[in-house]
Amino acid sequence: MPHTSTDAPALGLIGFGAFGRLAARQLRRHFRVLAYDPAAAADEAGVAFVGLTEAASCPVVVLAVPVCRLAETVAAVAPHLRPGALVLDVGSVKEEPARLMREGLPDHVEIVATHPLFGPQSARDGLAGLKIAVCPVRGRSARRVAAFLRRAFGLDVIVTTPEDHDRDAALAQGLTHLIAGLVVRMEPLPSRITTRSFDLLMEAVGMVRHDAPEVFEAIVRANPYAAEMRRRFAALAGAVDG
Amino acid sequence: MPHTSTDAPALGLIGFGAFGRLAARQLRRHFRVLAYDPAAAADEAGVAFVGLTEAASCPVVVLAVPVCRLAETVAAVAPHLRPGALVLDVGSVKEEPARLMREGLPDHVEIVATHPLFGPQSARDGLAGLKIAVCPVRGRSARRVAAFLRRAFGLDVIVTTPEDHDRDAALAQGLTHLIAGLVVRMEPLPSRITTRSFDLLMEAVGMVRHDAPEVFEAIVRANPYAAEMRRRFAALAGAVDG
Repeated sequence: MPHTSTDAPALGLIGFGAFGRLAARQLRRHFRVLAYDPAAAADEAGVAFVGLTEAASCPVVVLAVPVCRLAETVAAVAPHLRPGALVLDVGSVKEEPARLMREGLPDHVEIVATHPLFGPQSARDGLAGLKIAVCPVRGRSARRVAAFLRRAFGLDVIVTTPEDHDRDAALAQGLTHLIAGLVVRMEPLPSRITTRSFDLLMEAVGMVRHDAPEVFEAIVRANPYAAEMRRRFAALAGAVDG
Repeated sequence: MPHTSTDAPALGLIGFGAFGRLAARQLRRHFRVLAYDPAAAADEAGVAFVGLTEAASCPVVVLAVPVCRLAETVAAVAPHLRPGALVLDVGSVKEEPARLMREGLPDHVEIVATHPLFGPQSARDGLAGLKIAVCPVRGRSARRVAAFLRRAFGLDVIVTTPEDHDRDAALAQGLTHLIAGLVVRMEPLPSRITTRSFDLLMEAVGMVRHDAPEVFEAIVRANPYAAEMRRRFAALAGAVDG
């Protein structure tokens, strides 16, 4: 395991769910990771578990909580953030989180909204080549963040706006989750009489079927463009029995 | 290109569409391929284009025509088949083709119904590991055919009945084509903001979206179990806008 010197910059990680753990394992090579999660009795090599105040006082603070918990998390960390700190989120939608952070975090911090387009499943073999959307929200840190993510992890960084992100994600992620949900409800499905294209479809389904309910919730409900996507899909799909 | 000696057994290939061409390129290593297609002014190294009578007089005759043309093809070849010949089809459904061949071909020929679960797209890098369903219809040749397909091409041979095949194919192929058709109608879709699972879904769609209309027709309409699959899917999918 790479060694992090004690003078590496401190990074506060708020939330230690499946994605928080993945983030910690990558970030500990570059930061002293100070994690806080009220729910998780977590243990992870190279990660110090601390109180909220300490985690929120770091120069970089990553909010790795479900989108539905972001508002309360913003309110909880806000009083403890230091002037000049950089705050990032990692949720699957970006318009609402960007608004919550812009309105709820003190003017003296910089804000970058991100959406790593991967999770524990797709990052099993490393991060190189995977995608992350980065949306500047306040201050000029987004360019530095993008450069770091490219250099340190080989990520394919897509700098975009929360609106453009959510519009595309409603189709890319929303459609995949919608279809995966339908395919799962069609089970049992064949395992021998299959084609390469069916195998690919089932591989796609397998990657998202065990996603946390909060991820599904964010993708299918919290995305403002998802309802229109669902409506179009339902209209097309309801007509296939013709 | 492998050389086929002139004393290799002759194989009559009826139909030279996309799949007929793929079959010819593989089979010419083991047979003198005599192809007949009234529509195709085809040219292919190692394949002799002949009349229907000559193609149908070979010891092995492969009917590589769309399922919707099989009845007329069976009627056309029947008078020319030699006693002891082996006749195979390659259609995407098996119940109806097996019945058509059993009822329409003379008692003195053996019959094996097959469904190669691949096409020009999925076979681009060779046949090894790809799947083919083999259904004995008349005589004892199915075992010999299965052994040949395994040995000569490294195919994963699934010996099954037409009924079991069609039931599974309605789900595997039918569902993939149904979903692909819906996804295509949702376009334009994002190309940058995508996840690995969405990329896999689009890869699956890409493999079938340019399939010949006859293939789609066979999978979605000629399969007796496809209607029930469509009904279930439409009921589930029509409800996602809830």
